[in-house]
Amino acid sequence: MVISKNMETLVAGSSTIRKLFEEGLQLAKEVGAENVYDFSLGNPAAPVPEKVTQSIKDILAEKPDSYIHGYMKNAGFDEVRQNVAASLNKKFGMSYGPEDVIMTVGAAGAMNCIFRALLGYEDEVIAFAPYFGEYRSYVANYGGNLVVVPAKMDDFDLNLDALDELINEKTRCIIVNNPNNPSGRIFPEETLKKLAEIIEKAEKRVGHPIYVLADEPYRELVYDNDVVPYIPSIIKNSIYIYSFSKTLSLPGERIGYMALSKNMDCYDEMINAMAVANRCIGYINAPSLFQLVVSRCLDVDVDLEFYDKNRRLLYDKLTELGFNVVKPQGAFYLLVQSPFEDEAEFVALAKKHHIILVSTKTFGCPGYVRIAYCVDYEMIKRSLQAFEALAKDCGL
Amino acid sequence: MVISKNMETLVAGSSTIRKLFEEGLQLAKEVGAENVYDFSLGNPAAPVPEKVTQSIKDILAEKPDSYIHGYMKNAGFDEVRQNVAASLNKKFGMSYGPEDVIMTVGAAGAMNCIFRALLGYEDEVIAFAPYFGEYRSYVANYGGNLVVVPAKMDDFDLNLDALDELINEKTRCIIVNNPNNPSGRIFPEETLKKLAEIIEKAEKRVGHPIYVLADEPYRELVYDNDVVPYIPSIIKNSIYIYSFSKTLSLPGERIGYMALSKNMDCYDEMINAMAVANRCIGYINAPSLFQLVVSRCLDVDVDLEFYDKNRRLLYDKLTELGFNVVKPQGAFYLLVQSPFEDEAEFVALAKKHHIILVSTKTFGCPGYVRIAYCVDYEMIKRSLQAFEALAKDCGL
Repeated sequence: MVISKNMETLVAGSSTIRKLFEEGLQLAKEVGAENVYDFSLGNPAAPVPEKVTQSIKDILAEKPDSYIHGYMKNAGFDEVRQNVAASLNKKFGMSYGPEDVIMTVGAAGAMNCIFRALLGYEDEVIAFAPYFGEYRSYVANYGGNLVVVPAKMDDFDLNLDALDELINEKTRCIIVNNPNNPSGRIFPEETLKKLAEIIEKAEKRVGHPIYVLADEPYRELVYDNDVVPYIPSIIKNSIYIYSFSKTLSLPGERIGYMALSKNMDCYDEMINAMAVANRCIGYINAPSLFQLVVSRCLDVDVDLEFYDKNRRLLYDKLTELGFNVVKPQGAFYLLVQSPFEDEAEFVALAKKHHIILVSTKTFGCPGYVRIAYCVDYEMIKRSLQAFEALAKDCGL
Repeated sequence: MVISKNMETLVAGSSTIRKLFEEGLQLAKEVGAENVYDFSLGNPAAPVPEKVTQSIKDILAEKPDSYIHGYMKNAGFDEVRQNVAASLNKKFGMSYGPEDVIMTVGAAGAMNCIFRALLGYEDEVIAFAPYFGEYRSYVANYGGNLVVVPAKMDDFDLNLDALDELINEKTRCIIVNNPNNPSGRIFPEETLKKLAEIIEKAEKRVGHPIYVLADEPYRELVYDNDVVPYIPSIIKNSIYIYSFSKTLSLPGERIGYMALSKNMDCYDEMINAMAVANRCIGYINAPSLFQLVVSRCLDVDVDLEFYDKNRRLLYDKLTELGFNVVKPQGAFYLLVQSPFEDEAEFVALAKKHHIILVSTKTFGCPGYVRIAYCVDYEMIKRSLQAFEALAKDCGL
């Protein structure tokens, strides 16, 4: 083995989801793409808004190439940070300046900057199950450990009762992913206020700030007129993290940002460290053309119906077939309880029907499978007969 | 201090070059941009090739948005990796397949993937002075240490005599940046063959492969018909690293790649780890549109004359003024020996004449300053009277 021990673990447990995605591509070659129902990946199928393509063309026509594709400050273009700050201020009643915004290589890039800056060897980051499995890699990159709060299985809200005893001197951050991948749950204001109280008490106990990372790439993807509370207006020591991947259907472009409020503890030290981290972990800066593009697309409306009709169709059909389904409020994922004790069995059986599902073991919450319904509606319609056959095989 | 100790060091020593660049912007506000001669940053001033803009437009017209901006394999689009492999095979007589190429977030991104994969706590990476200062941060990200081979001051070739004794059980990689930033030196085939011998012997001694990272963003920027040897055809355990930042004038877009040869030790393990590292350090994949763009620009000719006329003008004038200048063979940097023992004094004096230079202390090789001549020719012409005055102040 030439690779490091730490990396060995990551390679061995390498993203189950990505593996399933690649297996799905293989299966498609064998039985035809139209006969495979791949619900594995959060690859948004909603069309890229016309405004994105138009913005690319406009920017190429309006700005000098050397500006569009050149270096800027590590934190991003001033004009882009200004627009992002103004948009957040308008939407959430905040008072960010451009200096509070750092453009990043997606939300994953933002989290890596934060962990790079905050984590010493064996420092801890807390996540609530079910959680996005890659958090574990991001924390491990810098020698830290991810500590998982067990899921609250009755309603998939944040399990606050189990949180407090997990916070100690090594705790640096707590991740809150709202709306949640994979449960589709929106954590309500009441829960977040309680979380704020617990953290404030804990900070006094451990003697340093504990930052809440509000990881919100799915913020606009909410249904039934539900609302996602804005964490930085509830929790003082929080960092807002956003990605344009999901709402603008640009996951390949790697563009997002983080915003820090000036009233947080150690603001100066933190904002400075974030810009340096952006550079020194090798991003240098967020991709330049797409900084300029998203800056013009901050007010683009998401076509919610695109995903909502998928959500309704799957939820209704699977419930009707006798599956136990967690009704999602946001994002584009849906949890189905495994009819078997070991959900690996359920995943394998589904695959026989050409349905690609992801076990929630990888999200720290076994017993369920995740369906990513960010796919084409027609594929879902075609998949229904396969789900019917699957239900029968499950004895439902 | 909330940030980690390791990060504290980085923030404290944060890029001198970037700081100078921002000081230059400030000075420009005070005395007018046309009166500041900023030679601090490797921000290429050559025009972005027309083919880049045309490729963006063509791709938008030809390919579906969901493909252009969507997820692909973490290693990059198959078609892009195929084109890169074919181009390397044609240029250097190699036999890469698409599976040997990993598209990355610039060369910095590639190096971070490699260090993430290879470095355990306190493992070592060797660089030859003078070296690009950011290497130190990239290695520190994963708990490693950068070990520096002192510069060979007579000709700035690789100091092979001093290398062998620095290699030990903790050594994982050796970086060779060819042509070199900041010396502009091209390391010749003869030197690289000797390097190969030293490494092969050392590998037997330490019992594991030591990978040479051929960091070559300046490969096409060579003058007087000089040639840069292709390291992977000389050194078995080497990884080729390329960035399009400099040759296509796209430093803000963060696009590059690495290529691994199948005959290297532990190829399977390495190539697999690189794709996983690309994902888990938070890049996920190289920016998608620009993967497709560079794939169409692999054969674009660089306008060498753009930089060569700068090189000739500065070299001739500074030599004539009595400065001791290292004549560059490649890249777009030029070293001038400081007339004072402490080159900080020289940098400060130059700043009085509105000339922004970088001390080579940050490159592990004090006593010189670096001039980045990737700037507008007219600025250099305007700067000559300031250099004259500076020479006088230096008593030349």
